[in-house]
Amino acid sequence: MVYITRKEHFSASHRLHNPDWSEAKNIETFGKCNNPNGHGHNYEIEVTVGGDPPKDTGMVMDLKKLSDVIDAEIIEKVDHKHMNHDIDFLTGVIPTAENMAIAFWNILKPKLPHARLISIKLYESPNNFVEYRGE
Amino acid sequence: MVYITRKEHFSASHRLHNPDWSEAKNIETFGKCNNPNGHGHNYEIEVTVGGDPPKDTGMVMDLKKLSDVIDAEIIEKVDHKHMNHDIDFLTGVIPTAENMAIAFWNILKPKLPHARLISIKLYESPNNFVEYRGE
Amino acid sequence: MVYITRKEHFSASHRLHNPDWSEAKNIETFGKCNNPNGHGHNYEIEVTVGGDPPKDTGMVMDLKKLSDVIDAEIIEKVDHKHMNHDIDFLTGVIPTAENMAIAFWNILKPKLPHARLISIKLYESPNNFVEYRGE
Amino acid sequence: MVYITRKEHFSASHRLHNPDWSEAKNIETFGKCNNPNGHGHNYEIEVTVGGDPPKDTGMVMDLKKLSDVIDAEIIEKVDHKHMNHDIDFLTGVIPTAENMAIAFWNILKPKLPHARLISIKLYESPNNFVEYRGE
Amino acid sequence: MVYITRKEHFSASHRLHNPDWSEAKNIETFGKCNNPNGHGHNYEIEVTVGGDPPKDTGMVMDLKKLSDVIDAEIIEKVDHKHMNHDIDFLTGVIPTAENMAIAFWNILKPKLPHARLISIKLYESPNNFVEYRGE
Amino acid sequence: MVYITRKEHFSASHRLHNPDWSEAKNIETFGKCNNPNGHGHNYEIEVTVGGDPPKDTGMVMDLKKLSDVIDAEIIEKVDHKHMNHDIDFLTGVIPTAENMAIAFWNILKPKLPHARLISIKLYESPNNFVEYRGE
Repeated sequence: MVYITRKEHFSASHRLHNPDWSEAKNIETFGKCNNPNGHGHNYEIEVTVGGDPPKDTGMVMDLKKLSDVIDAEIIEKVDHKHMNHDIDFLTGVIPTAENMAIAFWNILKPKLPHARLISIKLYESPNNFVEYRGE
Repeated sequence: MVYITRKEHFSASHRLHNPDWSEAKNIETFGKCNNPNGHGHNYEIEVTVGGDPPKDTGMVMDLKKLSDVIDAEIIEKVDHKHMNHDIDFLTGVIPTAENMAIAFWNILKPKLPHARLISIKLYESPNNFVEYRGE
Repeated sequence: MVYITRKEHFSASHRLHNPDWSEAKNIETFGKCNNPNGHGHNYEIEVTVGGDPPKDTGMVMDLKKLSDVIDAEIIEKVDHKHMNHDIDFLTGVIPTAENMAIAFWNILKPKLPHARLISIKLYESPNNFVEYRGE
Repeated sequence: MVYITRKEHFSASHRLHNPDWSEAKNIETFGKCNNPNGHGHNYEIEVTVGGDPPKDTGMVMDLKKLSDVIDAEIIEKVDHKHMNHDIDFLTGVIPTAENMAIAFWNILKPKLPHARLISIKLYESPNNFVEYRGE
Repeated sequence: MVYITRKEHFSASHRLHNPDWSEAKNIETFGKCNNPNGHGHNYEIEVTVGGDPPKDTGMVMDLKKLSDVIDAEIIEKVDHKHMNHDIDFLTGVIPTAENMAIAFWNILKPKLPHARLISIKLYESPNNFVEYRGE
Repeated sequence: MVYITRKEHFSASHRLHNPDWSEAKNIETFGKCNNPNGHGHNYEIEVTVGGDPPKDTGMVMDLKKLSDVIDAEIIEKVDHKHMNHDIDFLTGVIPTAENMAIAFWNILKPKLPHARLISIKLYESPNNFVEYRGE
């Protein structure tokens, strides 16, 4: 088993806000991340798949194809967008990095039928990041 | 003359949009940066000042004080904000990195009376950045 | 289960030295890290906690609170200090990155009662780092 | 158990090519990585070993010695070389990052008899990397 | 005057070799960079242009267009190639970073008629880089 | 004229302290950088030289030779040392990054007789750095 990872980038904005809560409770819980007009990040996403590289290619999976799947299924939909308003698959979900990573996993899993998806790592900034492993 | 630089960070969102133009011209000019709900970045700002370090301190300027000025005058105002809606000093200005760097220069210049402000460098992403030197 | 990580920074000095050994054995074992006046690093610490993000916040834990705990319990005590002389909780311990990571785990574990501490990763430099997972 | 990691660097070129295949199938499979004259990378290799740091050294293993082993066994042989033509231990193997990581593991494993080799991570670029854990 | 910079990446191989010299003089001069089968790098190119951002766009130049020009004129031609064998515009030139930066300047200069080209910075690795400013 | 830069690294400790001042004035001026036992950094030094690359080498200067000079004249003397106690050429000087950069310039200048020394850039951390250009 070898693990291969492809990193992609996108720039987006979001607001942490629970519409079922009062303004005061939102501010107390989410602090400056609750700013009504939102704020943004240069996100980095690392997708790891695992497998046994066959002798005739030496590749677990073509990293170019992995990159194409991530671009088509994720980056095209979220790059230069607002996570709270522009993204169908995040409707009704608070767009924390945790929830975004889970949503990305659920999208990519069926699009990679021949590979074993191991991990989605999402960097909101160099100092804040999350990982989801489908557990 | 020695140049000293302090780097600070903030996360913010913006939209490139000229309200005097048609929607079509805005999209043609600004592309996906014109998304109505905006998008965002992890910005990095590098402020460089120059001077001759005096013998008794060996410092052009206390980097902690430079950091405090940048934080109080810039970061506190723009971090976790939307450049088009939340920032007094950017009212009526298209918040490109170019215009943001010029605005930051104009704010910091009078707040650093004992130092020679040399450059403001603003990174929108690791691949896109601008520099303004007051010229 | 989602894993969230917060990275913090501190600058400190240390000396690798076993007082029970001869000078010769110390130099043979620790090389230039045994320099009597010490040397230093810009350390980076990554603290990972895991959990299931509840629906009403979407957060395993507030990263701001995790940052505050790391700052209060670790960074405030070690930043701009000498690991061999200034740190109560490292008394009698050779301040290798391994021992520092274990000490940081033991400090943070009881301060994060509502989270599951998964890993402490400590970078001495971009090329040298250690990880402790409480195993 | 503490995990310690040492990162080293080398610059090399390679070509992804299966000599048993037609030119067309090679291009279809490997794309621009099949360029006959090859292309290159600044590779980064991270070697992780695990252990219980003994009280008298506080070190799982001397990172300087780990670095020396990696340098002597790997870096000296692959730095500023062409993976397809210059490397004995890669003869008959397509030099993908996957196969290189496995080959490096097989070389290092017997050279680290007193440590527990945990992982070889190989970065072809900041966006493409693989990991092999001997599984 | 504001300076804007766009960074792009390519992976390529090269060999430092003067065909007018003996093998011995080549090895003495270029060391391991003279390896007959070449070696490679992940190159980074930073292109800086300067100008006064007009009020209606706030942009010295559309960074997307600058990126497109660099991609079409440079990256498409050098990515995943061997500098000594595959590149028309480097024929007869030793492909040092210095000569590559000058060649890139000469290609880009006429393709950016409405901008003032200020600098080409070329990173062969994080530790080795050159800059050409047309002087 | 092409500018070439070589980056090197060292780890060291220092204390900002003026022995002619009271303890109170030292703490007021240098803050936590005045900690009696010192603190440390992973320093990065970038040395830039300029010149016209001759046709037969294509190199302003052999970067390997530049690296060797920096290593022999600077890194060997300061790596894993305490700037206040272990360094002859810093005796009587407060080892701020400014003063260290000037000292490094004065050492390297006569050791590079065939090159034009342009700049010494010294990073104390990714967020704090200085540059000296011999002006």
